[in-house]
Amino acid sequence: MDAKERSGRYEMNAPTFHCDCLGALQMGYLGNYMLNAADYHATERGFGWFYLKSINKAWVLSRLCIEMAEMPKANEHFFIETWLESVKRYFTYRNFCIEDAKTGRVLGYARSVWALIDSTTRQPKDLLEVRNGDIATWVNNDKRCEMAPSGRARMTDEARLAASVTAQFSDIDVNGHVNSMKYIEHILNIFPMEWHKRNRIRRFDIAYVAEAYCGDLLNIYTQSMPDGSIAVKITKTNDTEEDKEVVRGIILCS
Amino acid sequence: MDAKERSGRYEMNAPTFHCDCLGALQMGYLGNYMLNAADYHATERGFGWFYLKSINKAWVLSRLCIEMAEMPKANEHFFIETWLESVKRYFTYRNFCIEDAKTGRVLGYARSVWALIDSTTRQPKDLLEVRNGDIATWVNNDKRCEMAPSGRARMTDEARLAASVTAQFSDIDVNGHVNSMKYIEHILNIFPMEWHKRNRIRRFDIAYVAEAYCGDLLNIYTQSMPDGSIAVKITKTNDTEEDKEVVRGIILCS
Repeated sequence: MDAKERSGRYEMNAPTFHCDCLGALQMGYLGNYMLNAADYHATERGFGWFYLKSINKAWVLSRLCIEMAEMPKANEHFFIETWLESVKRYFTYRNFCIEDAKTGRVLGYARSVWALIDSTTRQPKDLLEVRNGDIATWVNNDKRCEMAPSGRARMTDEARLAASVTAQFSDIDVNGHVNSMKYIEHILNIFPMEWHKRNRIRRFDIAYVAEAYCGDLLNIYTQSMPDGSIAVKITKTNDTEEDKEVVRGIILCS
Repeated sequence: MDAKERSGRYEMNAPTFHCDCLGALQMGYLGNYMLNAADYHATERGFGWFYLKSINKAWVLSRLCIEMAEMPKANEHFFIETWLESVKRYFTYRNFCIEDAKTGRVLGYARSVWALIDSTTRQPKDLLEVRNGDIATWVNNDKRCEMAPSGRARMTDEARLAASVTAQFSDIDVNGHVNSMKYIEHILNIFPMEWHKRNRIRRFDIAYVAEAYCGDLLNIYTQSMPDGSIAVKITKTNDTEEDKEVVRGIILCS
């Protein structure tokens, strides 16, 4: 099997109405396009969302780190190439390369980590038990992901509550919990328009710690870090549990 | 010029992560796909968003009415066909037909009304002055849009305030104001998850009265009507103007 077959490559475009006021594709939409590309790739190789649903399992995104030298602009076509970097018993490492369709220029990369869970118990499942570990045959060692691995945000007591928003119907996706990319939207929404006009997000690194559901109050905390990055944390508040961390991230602007 | 050329037909799919917790494409995403299809169609025929921007003009969506017998489901492919029903001096009537790609079954229709404005003055411009009225040559009388025209919501003092939300960065699109489909999301968000599980939206009829901007407070009012529909109104509150209606709509469930 050659590297080409082990990678999936999907042409997308940045539709005018998925772009922000500066004419660049919104980060949340780009992230969802990457999730969709991941699902196309997995589906074509026998371990997509629908097949896993039929055996009562699901992929859960555990980490995502996007690093963009440039965002696709309105009406521009781009390719998302995705491949598996490695497969461990409980985690799959999947990378992405985003390329301008016209010039072939690389616009950015992304790294993601996925776990397989049992849909009923929500407990992690051994990836290699699905289709006799067939997934491991798709690992592509020939393609390089030219960005640093995910970091770890170390927030202190100085983190401040920037906003609290209630998770609502449109936040919830086919898995029944808050869509991973909606957290990115909620985080970006805490910055005013003027901030977005002055700052371009170069790297968005996010770790998914727990799931939030419709009706949960999402509390978004931020802290400016000594290296110039912004650390972010979201906790959820609801009637049945103690406050719990759901998301943690680091934003780097240029 | 035949009817085929006068219509544009675009294959789309309902990506898993753009679907709601019932596995159906979210109405707001479907609406944005229709806006994108409209822009592809217009761009291919010389009057798309980019060309108009170059002559300091823009399309503004004035009305949209979507009627779906069925929503595309996760991972299903569908076609959006779009065509101009008629072109008047100040308004263009554009229709849509949504068709299941596998079976050819019609899933639904939509009607929309667009105005052309000067981007600086925000005043309506004569459509027929663009490219010597070339747009009128694209009217397609051969295709039928099999749904009733838009209605008019008549709300009374009994309308109640269901929610107020602040328009934020992710609500704003390439035009610099709240994206038309984000109003649909905000309206659908006022209903709890249980309501969405019991009710399927068959028809969503929305009129865009004024534009809202980042930071505006959007007040969403609803009223149950004698015919079983739900009338909706959004007003905006900000520091510089009186409260002003921005959107008005009617929702019909089945």
